[in-house]
Amino acid sequence: MTAIGIYGSEGRMGRVIATIAEDEGARIAGGVDAGGDPVPLAHAADVLVDFSTPAALESHLAAAVAARTPMVIGTTGLLPTHHAMIDRAAQEIAVLQTGNTSLGVTLLGILVQEAAQRLGSDWDIEIVEMHHRHKVDAPSGTAVLLGEAAARGRRTTLNEERVDGRAGLVGARTEGTIGFSSLRGGTVVGDHLVVFAGEGERIELGHRGEDRSIFARGAVKAALWLADRPAGRYSMAEVLGL
Amino acid sequence: MTAIGIYGSEGRMGRVIATIAEDEGARIAGGVDAGGDPVPLAHAADVLVDFSTPAALESHLAAAVAARTPMVIGTTGLLPTHHAMIDRAAQEIAVLQTGNTSLGVTLLGILVQEAAQRLGSDWDIEIVEMHHRHKVDAPSGTAVLLGEAAARGRRTTLNEERVDGRAGLVGARTEGTIGFSSLRGGTVVGDHLVVFAGEGERIELGHRGEDRSIFARGAVKAALWLADRPAGRYSMAEVLGL
Amino acid sequence: MTAIGIYGSEGRMGRVIATIAEDEGARIAGGVDAGGDPVPLAHAADVLVDFSTPAALESHLAAAVAARTPMVIGTTGLLPTHHAMIDRAAQEIAVLQTGNTSLGVTLLGILVQEAAQRLGSDWDIEIVEMHHRHKVDAPSGTAVLLGEAAARGRRTTLNEERVDGRAGLVGARTEGTIGFSSLRGGTVVGDHLVVFAGEGERIELGHRGEDRSIFARGAVKAALWLADRPAGRYSMAEVLGL
Amino acid sequence: MTAIGIYGSEGRMGRVIATIAEDEGARIAGGVDAGGDPVPLAHAADVLVDFSTPAALESHLAAAVAARTPMVIGTTGLLPTHHAMIDRAAQEIAVLQTGNTSLGVTLLGILVQEAAQRLGSDWDIEIVEMHHRHKVDAPSGTAVLLGEAAARGRRTTLNEERVDGRAGLVGARTEGTIGFSSLRGGTVVGDHLVVFAGEGERIELGHRGEDRSIFARGAVKAALWLADRPAGRYSMAEVLGL
Repeated sequence: MTAIGIYGSEGRMGRVIATIAEDEGARIAGGVDAGGDPVPLAHAADVLVDFSTPAALESHLAAAVAARTPMVIGTTGLLPTHHAMIDRAAQEIAVLQTGNTSLGVTLLGILVQEAAQRLGSDWDIEIVEMHHRHKVDAPSGTAVLLGEAAARGRRTTLNEERVDGRAGLVGARTEGTIGFSSLRGGTVVGDHLVVFAGEGERIELGHRGEDRSIFARGAVKAALWLADRPAGRYSMAEVLGL
Repeated sequence: MTAIGIYGSEGRMGRVIATIAEDEGARIAGGVDAGGDPVPLAHAADVLVDFSTPAALESHLAAAVAARTPMVIGTTGLLPTHHAMIDRAAQEIAVLQTGNTSLGVTLLGILVQEAAQRLGSDWDIEIVEMHHRHKVDAPSGTAVLLGEAAARGRRTTLNEERVDGRAGLVGARTEGTIGFSSLRGGTVVGDHLVVFAGEGERIELGHRGEDRSIFARGAVKAALWLADRPAGRYSMAEVLGL
Repeated sequence: MTAIGIYGSEGRMGRVIATIAEDEGARIAGGVDAGGDPVPLAHAADVLVDFSTPAALESHLAAAVAARTPMVIGTTGLLPTHHAMIDRAAQEIAVLQTGNTSLGVTLLGILVQEAAQRLGSDWDIEIVEMHHRHKVDAPSGTAVLLGEAAARGRRTTLNEERVDGRAGLVGARTEGTIGFSSLRGGTVVGDHLVVFAGEGERIELGHRGEDRSIFARGAVKAALWLADRPAGRYSMAEVLGL
Repeated sequence: MTAIGIYGSEGRMGRVIATIAEDEGARIAGGVDAGGDPVPLAHAADVLVDFSTPAALESHLAAAVAARTPMVIGTTGLLPTHHAMIDRAAQEIAVLQTGNTSLGVTLLGILVQEAAQRLGSDWDIEIVEMHHRHKVDAPSGTAVLLGEAAARGRRTTLNEERVDGRAGLVGARTEGTIGFSSLRGGTVVGDHLVVFAGEGERIELGHRGEDRSIFARGAVKAALWLADRPAGRYSMAEVLGL
């Protein structure tokens, strides 16, 4: 049985993963949270799953590389510097970073990329998401993932086109930009909608997460798939065969 | 300038097409409505557009074949017998039949087919649409078009799986079926939503028509594209290069 | 501690109620399911909760009346004959029948009634709901509850205006009717939307149930509130003080 | 026939009002735009309608007060200083300021206020709107109007609770706040949704504007109603008898 080590094991996702691992044919090697030493767990586990904080990523990656243990990263709020760290680690170990581990969102990303590619840039793209009141960062990692898919479809990068939290006297919309809006409230697991707004018509591609266990199940699937891969950076689409 | 003849020229769509044809680089050869003789128009026009009624389709097709004039068919509420007529006519002339002539819906059909293909049949498919209070048939031709795309993605045919207007003690849902729901009210141009409902998550792919002119513009584009094609049955995806 | 007896204790709702009763300050007196004798439980309980089937309602009501035990009825798919039974029983004991026990839906019903009252009948009303693939009846009890609220707002009764499962060549919409559409799929707890469609604009009033426990919690609250009421027919709005 | 003077007559709304005035039993006294002198029009008109810019409001109000001509204000993006100006003018003439002149939105505001009043502050309120790509300010005047209705229902003021354009590491949601999100794209006339997110359930109250003429029609109705009122500040709810 594959042994999964969890960074961020006391967080919302960490706890669900622990309860779901056995259903999916894995066992939990242990957990580490803020202040804990990531190194022993990296050696004890066959594969690591990180749902902690951006600040902890560097030490978690270092531990994983040192132990030559593959790692699934589901932490949200990553900056370009974090992605550079991940790319470096992926030269040594297998790494899969994703804003969302569900089948539905992974497929949605593929559809968004395709729609963005086939529609001209005169179709404006807006991404809106809603999560529960405890979520601390905005937009969600999943919204960013969908924005990156849209940018890829248009052969550009998200950073060049991204507009977050439009407010005030913002002026007319700039062609080619991708807007993000974030709602927070109640106990919402995670809803996402990508709107393509053209002349006289709109296409709306969305996902509703009803139950957090879909993400945990996907994370465990990803961990099992990644456990024996060679070094490299992988995607959920590969895990799910999409 | 290509001369377009309109069957159903006094209907909602017929009138919009007439006002839009010149913008798109065409002219109107004339129109025929219930009770009129379709034959002279078929000879006068370079291409025909039919937004009339299923009952009139047979005589319109006969006129088009006799005159060797290509025909775009946007009439909704067609039965299998009508499709058989269209297939026969398509051996003699170019014919394009579609439930919707907009770019958005045509692309949505492609995305729906792809999603249906990649998701297992344990993801239930439901299609819901809303149109203005004057629409006489349900579900809409566009909803049927989307259902056919979903069925194609699953390598089945819509007729085998279709469930219309669920009401009463219907029992638990049968795996593999595709449900249709139709709302009618106000002045709604046409909204469509395809829901894929899985275990703990949903994907929702939709289209909102804001302005009837998108359909008219698409119909004229289709007519211009079809005017000089050889015999055969064509699709909007080909017209739009999707 | 108030003792709650559950008819339909092995059903989806019955089981959730059992797990939630203690949180809300109640205890479970026992449960009865298809084939069981409802009489002893009616005597043992301070209040009964029925989430079983329409066919069982008559014997459950008879048991409740004989034991002079108040009863909350959440069974869906009731016909006018069932409502007549409930009215008769309410002359002897306290009865609360509702299509939905959540705070959100109860408030939504009030808002729908008010909107229907203030908007003329030239605003068409459509109600659409989605539930999980195991639900056997359509439309949902909650959809009917919302339709009744709309009809009350218009000073008519739902039975006169109701249109279920529109399909086929239905003709133009009749003014004043209230349409129902039911989607089924996946694990959806229960989504409802009431659309008021006017000339050039729409008002949409909806509810999304994320977690079945909201209904169980509401049912237990209703039971506690009802336990010491005199004979009569009560509503969730009274329970919740809305 | 009542003579309506239009400030902002070359803008999107100004032009639609001009085409619709006669249908509603009014005539156009003339129009003034950026750089024009507002004074003569104020004297020539029986009532003024202002859909221009916040910067022009002071001179428009001064002209209206000097001429003792009532004024409907539909300009969006107003600041507290503008509202103070309006209050002062309303001591001299009849003034109606609104973020939205449609029947649907006016009723929605009433429903939002009622929902906010009846639900505790543990139901989080989020407002999301979408408008066409040319709109220069965010959130829309209508979204602000709905936020004010929600704040009134909670016996607070919007300015104390307002959160615009959430983005970045914002931390957990603060109880009692009202969030705003603004999408821009395509040709969307104006969609608004107010989400009340509670424990395990959501209420969603929304409006879709399909056609800009609903706002123009409402503005003309408001102008006709206001033309012979005494000094004071009035609301659309009074115009529409809601």
